Amino acid sequence: MPTIYLAGPEVFLPDARDVMSEKRRLARSFGFEPTGPGSDENQAPVARLTADAIYRRNEDAMRRADVCLANITPFRGISADPGTVYEIGFMIALGKKVWAYTNHPDDYGSRVRSIWYGGLEIDESSGRPRGPDGMAIENHGKADNLMIDLGIEAIGGRVVRALALPADPARELAIFAEALRQLANKKGLQ
Amino acid sequence: MPTIYLAGPEVFLPDARDVMSEKRRLARSFGFEPTGPGSDENQAPVARLTADAIYRRNEDAMRRADVCLANITPFRGISADPGTVYEIGFMIALGKKVWAYTNHPDDYGSRVRSIWYGGLEIDESSGRPRGPDGMAIENHGKADNLMIDLGIEAIGGRVVRALALPADPARELAIFAEALRQLANKKGLQ
Repeated sequence: MPTIYLAGPEVFLPDARDVMSEKRRLARSFGFEPTGPGSDENQAPVARLTADAIYRRNEDAMRRADVCLANITPFRGISADPGTVYEIGFMIALGKKVWAYTNHPDDYGSRVRSIWYGGLEIDESSGRPRGPDGMAIENHGKADNLMIDLGIEAIGGRVVRALALPADPARELAIFAEALRQLANKKGLQ
Repeated sequence: MPTIYLAGPEVFLPDARDVMSEKRRLARSFGFEPTGPGSDENQAPVARLTADAIYRRNEDAMRRADVCLANITPFRGISADPGTVYEIGFMIALGKKVWAYTNHPDDYGSRVRSIWYGGLEIDESSGRPRGPDGMAIENHGKADNLMIDLGIEAIGGRVVRALALPADPARELAIFAEALRQLANKKGLQ
């Protein structure tokens, strides 16, 4: 049974234990053995571990995992949780299979416009859109910064996006389950 | 001469060419051959490249580089540019030497409180601080999400932080130069 590293910011939720338990249950139902941040249920809660111990536990789990499924739903801003992004880059460089999903349907450039610039005028005159502060806005239509999407695509992974924003993007698991289903159907994994 | 990958979001600046040119000049003055996003001065501007071509160029440069110096100054929010975070994780997994610098003096938890929650009341009762929405706040005193800082520290790198917020955090290069100086002084690099 392949081991799947469930990257994502769920560990910060007030009901982290419940949400992560359901994610692990779903992963098992598709034939994966789950691991990842906070997934060692019998260990000390993350709050009691030092930063160094948390890092080493996560790095060890990444090295032992066969595949990563990362939650890149925007977290406290316009982009994915930075710890999750670190893990995506790390596991791609290790040669692991990496997929991602997001509960936000909009691409990164749209979120920069709607959330960061909040409807302010965007300069489209140069072929490269820029905010009122002159900063360029990525317009490649990707779910997040292109390094994330293209890194995943370059190794044959997929970024699975919600079609509409769910009522509770931090906890919705329909797209997570859909990504697991697609991953389980890919040949060569099991 | 070691090749240094200059990771950071400067490519989005309106005066990207000038700022990146000065970063390359400084890197050379400390004995490094610079590479990284937008650093191939004779190539097509990034706006004319496809996302796939940009990714492949950056990944190739990361694989060829000896060391990475990443600008993790917060970009459009409370954390580092996600493309830069991807590159930090990627190069650490490749076994490269990775350092970072930030022009923001505050740790990540402080920025979550001051910028994201904007002075709202934080619940400190459980030993793990939480915002009014119940979400936990990292309190490890690191410059960004602990995966970034600890990943760098685990391989013997350093995160060099400004002592005070400069007038222009997106362009200030004093801490960048200081990080280059410290890197150049470390044995075994050259």
